[in-house]
Amino acid sequence: MSSALTFRVTKTASDCNARLGTLTLPRATLETPVFMPVGTQGTVKAMLFENIEQLGYKLILGNTFHLYLRPGSERVERLGGLPNFIGWSGAMLTDSGGFQVYSLKDLRKITESGVAFKSPIDGSKHDFTPERVMEIEHQLGADVIMAFDECTPYPATEEYVRLSMERTHRWAIRCRDRHAELGGDSTGHNLFGIVQGGTDDALRAESAAFMSSLDFAGVAIGGVSVGEPPAEMYRITRNTAPLLPLNKPRYLMGVGMPEDILEAVIAGMDMFDCVLPTRMARNGTVFTSQGRRHVSNARFAEDTNPIDPDCDCLTCTRHSAAYLRHLHRCNEILFANLASIHNLAFYARLMQQIRGAIADGSLLQLRDSLRDQWGLVPIDELT
Amino acid sequence: MSSALTFRVTKTASDCNARLGTLTLPRATLETPVFMPVGTQGTVKAMLFENIEQLGYKLILGNTFHLYLRPGSERVERLGGLPNFIGWSGAMLTDSGGFQVYSLKDLRKITESGVAFKSPIDGSKHDFTPERVMEIEHQLGADVIMAFDECTPYPATEEYVRLSMERTHRWAIRCRDRHAELGGDSTGHNLFGIVQGGTDDALRAESAAFMSSLDFAGVAIGGVSVGEPPAEMYRITRNTAPLLPLNKPRYLMGVGMPEDILEAVIAGMDMFDCVLPTRMARNGTVFTSQGRRHVSNARFAEDTNPIDPDCDCLTCTRHSAAYLRHLHRCNEILFANLASIHNLAFYARLMQQIRGAIADGSLLQLRDSLRDQWGLVPIDELT
Repeated sequence: MSSALTFRVTKTASDCNARLGTLTLPRATLETPVFMPVGTQGTVKAMLFENIEQLGYKLILGNTFHLYLRPGSERVERLGGLPNFIGWSGAMLTDSGGFQVYSLKDLRKITESGVAFKSPIDGSKHDFTPERVMEIEHQLGADVIMAFDECTPYPATEEYVRLSMERTHRWAIRCRDRHAELGGDSTGHNLFGIVQGGTDDALRAESAAFMSSLDFAGVAIGGVSVGEPPAEMYRITRNTAPLLPLNKPRYLMGVGMPEDILEAVIAGMDMFDCVLPTRMARNGTVFTSQGRRHVSNARFAEDTNPIDPDCDCLTCTRHSAAYLRHLHRCNEILFANLASIHNLAFYARLMQQIRGAIADGSLLQLRDSLRDQWGLVPIDELT
Repeated sequence: MSSALTFRVTKTASDCNARLGTLTLPRATLETPVFMPVGTQGTVKAMLFENIEQLGYKLILGNTFHLYLRPGSERVERLGGLPNFIGWSGAMLTDSGGFQVYSLKDLRKITESGVAFKSPIDGSKHDFTPERVMEIEHQLGADVIMAFDECTPYPATEEYVRLSMERTHRWAIRCRDRHAELGGDSTGHNLFGIVQGGTDDALRAESAAFMSSLDFAGVAIGGVSVGEPPAEMYRITRNTAPLLPLNKPRYLMGVGMPEDILEAVIAGMDMFDCVLPTRMARNGTVFTSQGRRHVSNARFAEDTNPIDPDCDCLTCTRHSAAYLRHLHRCNEILFANLASIHNLAFYARLMQQIRGAIADGSLLQLRDSLRDQWGLVPIDELT
């Protein structure tokens, strides 16, 4: 491992900003647009790694905040880095912990220097500065690492959004510099910057220009999917994506529902992550070709069909909706396993469909027909 | 499905009562001695069926009591029977619910007719009679079904043990008769009788003679592993097994720890089931070639070796002890999956070793050397 990432756009749509690309990371080469399952604590919840691999995923996330607290980034480094530690042969990306730290609310304090917070596990005190987070992410050793930012809350005053964005910009420079001291992208840990700016198009444009100027290996849009209406998120993404470097991977953080990913791909984004497919699975909601379903529904009580007749995943080829409903009612661990496999299979297939549609120039038609199948209003009525 | 089971003893040890056999059930043919993982609610907890199959298991249990309450045996029948319902292509055995019903304590009342009990799920009232349990087990539709018995508690007075045993004998006749009315073993649901008699050798002998006389497809020893010291269990098994029919499968119910299974095989038993490997797995205890270990032990914190260096299971070939410890500390579902796979792999390998040792006449040596490896006292010091 010593190589920086390479990214090549292989096709751009003619009727929208979508693009196909090939992303080569130290541990894997993959096609974009790509969805990345979230492995918060070093495990994609309820998923055996064999099952993740079977679905074709080659890039998963780890959360810096959680792994820093447990088992600790020094320990992970001594154990050979995060992918070795968890036994994952594919590529990994770590977030910066920004989102989690801000979610602590009463347990954290933000200053120009960084963020002081108390561990929600044992109350111990910690400081995340841009420099410290770079050191931690280098210890964790993922293929892609994220700059330390403030995930601006929604709603927020225009004044606070600007203040927060400008601090994120200063922190981005500090991250870039510390990352360079640690060896830079040639260590195999490729640093991405994060655009902020809330729901203000002008601030987003300013932030996009700033992050594009810093020569990061990739650029992310952060601070979306934090409570704003979907139409706001779609607008921000649509207006911001074209301002990002054409030749670098563009990552929309924390997004999202299948319909959100479709809009973001159309806007020109390449990478996505979200806890929803696995979290909703554990809670009993499955994605199907006919829209979302909750397995507890009485209609499934004696349904010997798979929960999604159009799905070829391990769960759907072997088990009936009636059995899944039974496992869910009994609160059995196997339910979490089977529903997570199914939802991640749905996402993997969605991304395949998206890539295929970009290749043959039919992405907008795919978006319209999937929204219709899923029982969603046409996109024109939403925006 | 229409065939009764066949059982053939292929070798008998010369220095103990152990035997090798081939058991042919409607859904699978397997070698004995065999261990059967327990699938209480229609799932071997935390195990994907693919993983059960990979370990070579062809016969698993379902619990009549749990499945009768949820999803209900009528429903299971409408869904094609238990194996179809859960998506298991191998063979199955259902217990009679006797053990679970008696465990309800304050919620049940035993009479000559049967047992009245309240559901621990919703307080609803139910009656299990020998006839009703036969009907329920036929609805569930396993390859092997068990007669309804009273699992005599330990300790109990000699008077109660006799009273309970004699009632179990009367119930066995009622089970046999109702089973015959329902079509008997030719339905593919093969009925086993259960020997009771507490820790009293004379009562056990009486019960063994009685059950042997009823022409069941197999005979089980029940009412062990209910709190009595291991030495008592070993003595009962050693003295009772030789009194069971030579040409029928002999099933020791609810046993047990690896060392218990070794003694019971030596005594001449063929079939075993126990929740311990999966339950202990979920609680963090793993079986290893060097004895039991708890993954939370600090010595594993930075141990990059597998939790059992002598194991070739999916867990041990991919993941370190340090990672398992981390997952356990974080209470991650994947821990239950990986530890359960490992413990059931340990049991599968143990049974393979046992069958190999019977084949080459070295079972007593295997028992002694395994007890030594596992850090247990020599068997002579225990009994």
